[in-house]
Amino acid sequence: MSERRIVALAGGVGAARFLSGLVQVAAPSEITVIVNTGDDRDFFGLRVCPDLDILTYTLAGRIRADTGWGLEGDTFACLEQLRRFRDDTWFQLGDRDLATHLHRSERLRQGATLSEVTREITLAFGLEIELLPMSDEPAATMLVRSGGERCDFEEYLVRDGAPDDIREIDLSAARSARPAPGVLEAIAGAERLLVCPSNPVVSIGTIRAVAGVEEQLRARGDAVAVSPLIGGAPVKGPVDRLLPAFGVEVSSTGIAELYLPIAVGMLIDEADRDEAAGIEALGLRVRTAVSLMRTPEIAATLARAALELADEAAGA
Amino acid sequence: MSERRIVALAGGVGAARFLSGLVQVAAPSEITVIVNTGDDRDFFGLRVCPDLDILTYTLAGRIRADTGWGLEGDTFACLEQLRRFRDDTWFQLGDRDLATHLHRSERLRQGATLSEVTREITLAFGLEIELLPMSDEPAATMLVRSGGERCDFEEYLVRDGAPDDIREIDLSAARSARPAPGVLEAIAGAERLLVCPSNPVVSIGTIRAVAGVEEQLRARGDAVAVSPLIGGAPVKGPVDRLLPAFGVEVSSTGIAELYLPIAVGMLIDEADRDEAAGIEALGLRVRTAVSLMRTPEIAATLARAALELADEAAGA
Repeated sequence: MSERRIVALAGGVGAARFLSGLVQVAAPSEITVIVNTGDDRDFFGLRVCPDLDILTYTLAGRIRADTGWGLEGDTFACLEQLRRFRDDTWFQLGDRDLATHLHRSERLRQGATLSEVTREITLAFGLEIELLPMSDEPAATMLVRSGGERCDFEEYLVRDGAPDDIREIDLSAARSARPAPGVLEAIAGAERLLVCPSNPVVSIGTIRAVAGVEEQLRARGDAVAVSPLIGGAPVKGPVDRLLPAFGVEVSSTGIAELYLPIAVGMLIDEADRDEAAGIEALGLRVRTAVSLMRTPEIAATLARAALELADEAAGA
Repeated sequence: MSERRIVALAGGVGAARFLSGLVQVAAPSEITVIVNTGDDRDFFGLRVCPDLDILTYTLAGRIRADTGWGLEGDTFACLEQLRRFRDDTWFQLGDRDLATHLHRSERLRQGATLSEVTREITLAFGLEIELLPMSDEPAATMLVRSGGERCDFEEYLVRDGAPDDIREIDLSAARSARPAPGVLEAIAGAERLLVCPSNPVVSIGTIRAVAGVEEQLRARGDAVAVSPLIGGAPVKGPVDRLLPAFGVEVSSTGIAELYLPIAVGMLIDEADRDEAAGIEALGLRVRTAVSLMRTPEIAATLARAALELADEAAGA
């Protein structure tokens, strides 16, 4: 294992799989992950942080395999009982999962920051890797539908099933949020900077929107990004339905344009090798790899390829 | 079923069993129960109201039979998971049970009163009987141990196992709490007033301590109380360890003296028939009955006996 200080920007499921590969090829104690909190919201008075929890549970080996979120073997007795009282029970909070949200919510109410309670939770799950929320302040991504109604990301994705009706993505909350302590310092001090295969708009774009983060990323300009697309389509999530609202083409090339100001290289799937020349013409180094992370071995190989590309770009 | 307007003062398990008898011999829609909230407290940021919940679950036929608290068939996945984060997990909150506390806590944070959310919860459980919290304001009973330390009732009863070391019972919070809307009116307007077989100090005594309640009860002076003792000992709970701290003898006679200012009659267990003459000498009408409520039929018989004694005292 190398001891390079690695910083990765991350969303949820795709990032979690990639990072579970990265911790096999780099020391977890040398990795800091800056995590999107734009999808966070309250359910039943409890603070739920979907991306932080997906990363924590995945890296702890406790993630529910069939969904990529929630805890393996979890039950839903509380949620079923809640239906007795209310009809807003569309977000699947398992009984074990609730413990995380209960503990976090009480600590936040006691005055702890999200960074502090995230550290407590990751330590309780035995993680050595550092997960930093992008901000300790509210930064909810809001979506504007074709009819003009606004909703938050979980309402769009989970409640409504991610329909193809997004007119605008409003990152203004992230723009007025200050980065959590350590975020700018981690980016500035990293030896290698990676962008996980996450949604470039509502995951990575939200992190970039936080005050000061984009400037710090551009000052380096040496990130290596892993495209979340395979054959021009997302493995999971609504990235193909959200890129157009951002004026971005649904392709690794479109995403490369989005990452150009902060990146030096990009890993794309072998299925998208036709795009390599075009992305190189934009000025990025490109490698192709198998990016569907069906096994921990494939995830490790993908992470190693990303690190090698970053090493190469750094002339190491 | 008679249609008399009945008001009952109630604590937890004993009261719940008695009331499940009362609803068999009187119309539930004509019964108002004024419930002790001195044992309420927060666990993990959730408001837990043990007596209100025991009564709700029992009257809904959903109570866990082996304990007298919690929901039948409940699981404890969330609580077990919480142990990952903290060591204050001594209060047994089941997964289904948590739904009640989650819903109540969010509604309270939204500004609903405990009375309002109690009505919502009892309706959601299909109850026709009215449960009124004694107060919508905090009214925690505090106990002073022999060493001088203070603790709340659940810490004493559940965390510490109700040891015999109570020097003082502090009802000052209840004394400065205002009665919930409808409490004084219910007492004033009742046709029959019953005191359930509950702890005379930390359940009934707490209700009596709420500002204005004792005056209203004394103005009537016609309550019929059911002794919580059988053979001079409690069926459940630490009443024998708490009465001495209140300067009260552990016997139905001791309890009769405590109830004398508000009562006209008392139902005592057949095992305590020796005490009947002494209690009558105090000025109360006395009946003996089987008060160990092992079956719904026994509970109904006991409730009928209490109502008959109240009718008789009223000259009905």
